[in-house]
Order: sequence, then structure tokens, then C-alpha cells
Amino acid sequence: MPVLVPGPASPQLAQRLAKACNYTVAKVSYRVFPDGESYVRVESNLKGETAIVVQSCPPPQDKRLMELLQLIDASLRAGSSKVFAIVPYFAYSRQDKVFLDYEALSSKIIAKIIEAIGANLLITVNIHSDLVLSYFEKIKALNLDAFPEVASYLTSYNLRKPLVLSPDRKRYPDAQRVARLINGEAAFLEKKRDLLSGAVTTEEKELTLEGRDIVIVDDIISTGGTLINAAKIVSRGNPSRIIAACIHGLYANNALEKLAAAGVSEVVSTDTIESPTSKISVARIIADTLKELTGG
Amino acid sequence: MPVLVPGPASPQLAQRLAKACNYTVAKVSYRVFPDGESYVRVESNLKGETAIVVQSCPPPQDKRLMELLQLIDASLRAGSSKVFAIVPYFAYSRQDKVFLDYEALSSKIIAKIIEAIGANLLITVNIHSDLVLSYFEKIKALNLDAFPEVASYLTSYNLRKPLVLSPDRKRYPDAQRVARLINGEAAFLEKKRDLLSGAVTTEEKELTLEGRDIVIVDDIISTGGTLINAAKIVSRGNPSRIIAACIHGLYANNALEKLAAAGVSEVVSTDTIESPTSKISVARIIADTLKELTGG
Repeated sequence: MPVLVPGPASPQLAQRLAKACNYTVAKVSYRVFPDGESYVRVESNLKGETAIVVQSCPPPQDKRLMELLQLIDASLRAGSSKVFAIVPYFAYSRQDKVFLDYEALSSKIIAKIIEAIGANLLITVNIHSDLVLSYFEKIKALNLDAFPEVASYLTSYNLRKPLVLSPDRKRYPDAQRVARLINGEAAFLEKKRDLLSGAVTTEEKELTLEGRDIVIVDDIISTGGTLINAAKIVSRGNPSRIIAACIHGLYANNALEKLAAAGVSEVVSTDTIESPTSKISVARIIADTLKELTGG
Repeated sequence: MPVLVPGPASPQLAQRLAKACNYTVAKVSYRVFPDGESYVRVESNLKGETAIVVQSCPPPQDKRLMELLQLIDASLRAGSSKVFAIVPYFAYSRQDKVFLDYEALSSKIIAKIIEAIGANLLITVNIHSDLVLSYFEKIKALNLDAFPEVASYLTSYNLRKPLVLSPDRKRYPDAQRVARLINGEAAFLEKKRDLLSGAVTTEEKELTLEGRDIVIVDDIISTGGTLINAAKIVSRGNPSRIIAACIHGLYANNALEKLAAAGVSEVVSTDTIESPTSKISVARIIADTLKELTGG
């Protein structure tokens, strides 16, 4: 039977996943030394078993990545025959190509180092760019879609004439998928981004919003700039409620406070990143994939 | 001609090294995004040249390591034919073997990922454990000794009957080497360390200290616990001065204040880690090695 190896960034998801799969959970100790170095030790013998390492990589990303590598390494030292690395939030996935000459291709660096330490499979959730999957050259990398889980959660809100809004054109298919699942309408806002300054502007589209529940969906909320802009535009139309739903809630620079100030009444995310908003679990979709892979 | 690629952790050492070698310095831009992800771009074309990446890895170690990987990757993307990674302080070098079952072997992880991203040579300074050099399996790893530079700096103090003290037996050869170079005496204190609790105790040895200048030397000052103990013991002997000299000054948990309180009148370190105490440069010893390697 595979054994679950929980990482310090994903304690709740690891427990939920173990329960969903009926896996035992290895005892793992973590420590951070006074100078800041991380220490990881797997205390169970994993001889011959598949180790399912669960470690997300939200901020502090670089520390979470180092811990991920340590978990993979320690699992192999504990005798596991294979290591599946489950990285629900894949850090650096927005650095997915070389936009300007001689930039570091950071997401490819992450792929290479995960392979170098000996993982045999990578599973992630709604990675920002599919390109990143192709940077795994030695092992298989799977990307799971949690938007159906988000849609399922949204139905509990009893939404009124729901409009599912993507804050940009690129993510429109996500909004369409969620809209279909909750019997709502889908739309998107235009976004223009200046490559060097990073500034983002959003243009209004003609939409009937009055009295409706608006769900703005995005894969990642980082500083929330895009969503805050969208919420401000949408709120001019006198909607009933504005809800923000995402897969990965990073919330840099007090994003939650700013979203509230922009008229968003509720923010909800999944447990790819554990926080007070992560009310939607990705355990079931990961469990289904693991059961398929391990024949369990 | 090799081109120097300065990392954000080593701005001064990079400049000193460029000057000592007469290398040009590439323009490199760094950024940290609001969510904490690092970004590195080399702005000069390095076509066909050897890139000399200089990036130390003191706290925050994991961020410094990620930047190191990004610098190596960006240098290769900028067309460099070879990348020499100069990592004056090698993070995680105290996790040099598996002390307890199924610990992650973190220093080996670091070696593997530096190799995986494509560095062709590793140069470090007074690495805590030579074992770590053997974890580089694909490329050569060189360890330079900066204690002669420390000794040379100490002569400027006009020391009075100097006693060079190692706070433990293991580092005694370093103290002996420094003592020889400054015409002083060398000694060491016994140290007992409890493996699980990490507690350190030091026992007094019979030494004549009265009126003498004591130089306590160590490779790394982290929390300074060992040195603080040593200074307390030594100060009972009424020495003239107690000076602490190290290669790598990390100074976790207010170590400098605690050293002062323990009677240490001056702390000096090298620029492997840049700080107000790093008055000794390792530029010359690295420059000498680079000139030998590149035939310059």
C-alpha cells in the first residue's frame, strides 16, 4: 500500500487525502534551525512502498521547494520504491517561458530539480501554464482540474441568475466550464498588460448585472489586482453579490482586505494552499487519480 | 575573457573579484515579485564566454539557492559556454551526512541541483565538511582556504602574546594554522554535543590567559553558542582582549550582541557573507584560482 508523506505546507490536504485513499500516514519531523535551514526526517520505514509526498509550494516558495526536495530525498532514504510528488500549487508557474532575452526559465528549473532528486511522478492542480508540464523530461507530470469542485461548492450558495466572469480572455474557458456546471452565464473582461511595467488595465464589457450574483473566477489570486479591477467595474452595475472563487489563494499585499474594499463579499479557494478561505478540497480529485495509478 | 555574473547575495565580493581578475561585469537584474517569487535576468550577451556566477547562500538560504540556480540558467541562456558557480558560503553544509535514519541529506540535494541546472564547476570557501565536495558527481568542486587571509588581517591588531583558540577539537587544525601564521600559540576547548537535543557544553582546559590577546577562531558563527561558551570560560582567566574571527558570519538570534555580552571585544569575518563584520576579503584567493583555471 502506498504511504502518505505529509509536507509542512499541506497538513490538512495530506490528512484528507490519506482518508480518501485509506493510506497510512508516515511520521515526518520537520525543523527549521536558528539560522533558517530546513531539516526533514521521515521516521517510518517505507521499504518497497510508493511514497506519496504531499507538499504545496506557496510563499515562502523557495523554502517550500527545498522542503519538497528534502521530503523526496528522505522518502527514498526510507526505502520507498517510488516517490509520487504531489505539488498542488506549483510555484514559479507564471515564469513559464522566456519573455525577455536571457531571463531564467524558473518553472523549468523547478521541474529539473524535482527530477534530479528522484521523484517518479509529478501531480499538480490547475497549473497556471500547461507549458510547464512539458519541462518534465524524465518523468510524467499530471495536471488535475479542480474547477468542477469549485462549481460544486458554489451551488451551495443558491446563486441568483449567476454570471461567472473571467477577469481576462485567456481564462474564459474556466469561467465557461464553471458556468455550465452551475447553470449560469459566462463572460470575460478585456485585460491589457504592459510587459515591462507589469501594469494591468481592464476594460468594461456590456453586461446586465443588476440584481445578479456575480462569481469572478481565476486560477490564482496573488495580489488580486486583476480581480480588484474586475470587482470595481462589476460593482457599478449594481449586482446582488460579488463572489471571488479561485483555485490557489496566495493573497499577497493584503489582497483579501482590498477585495473586500472593492465590493467582494466572499472569497473562496481550494486547499492547494491552506488558509481560512480554502473551503474547497482537492483531495477527492487527487485520490481518484492515485487510485487509478496504483490500481487501488 | 570570462565575464562576471554578480548575484544579489554577493555584490561587493563580485566587484572585488572582477577588479582582481580584470573581468567585465555582466548587467544582471533581479526582482522579487509581490508574492515572493524571485526573478533573474542577465542583460548582457555572454556568447562563448565563461560565466563566473558569484552568489553566496547565507540566510535566507533557500531564496539565495533559487537565485543561484536562476543565475546559472540565465547565464547559459545568454550564451555562455561554461558556468563556474562561486558559492562562497555553501548553505546546508552542516547537513553533511545521515546522522539519524531517513534524514534528508540536504547538502547532497544542493550539490545535485547545482549540477542539474548546468554549472560546470563549483568553487566554495572553507566548506564546513569536505564530504559535501564528494556529493558533486558530475562536476569538479573546489574548496578554498581563507584562514591565511584571516591570519594576515589579524596581524594588523598588534596582538599581545596571542593565543589562537579553537572552540572544539575538530577545528583545532584551523587554529594551529592561524597561530603559525601570526606567531602565536594554539589551543582548543573540549566540546560535547548531544545529538538529539543539539545542546553544546564546553569544558575548561588549563591555559595561561592573563594579559594575553585571545583569538577564538571558527569556520562559521551561526547562533554563536559555541563561541559564547568559549568566551565566557576564557574571560575568567583575565585575558587582555578576546577577539572572535570566523570565515562565515551568519549571526543568527542576535549572536553579535551575545558575543559582546560574553566579553568579545571584536568580531571579524570574511566577505563570503557580506555584513558590517566582513572586513576580510576572499577575492584574492578566488581570483588566484580563477586565473589558474582560465590561464589568465
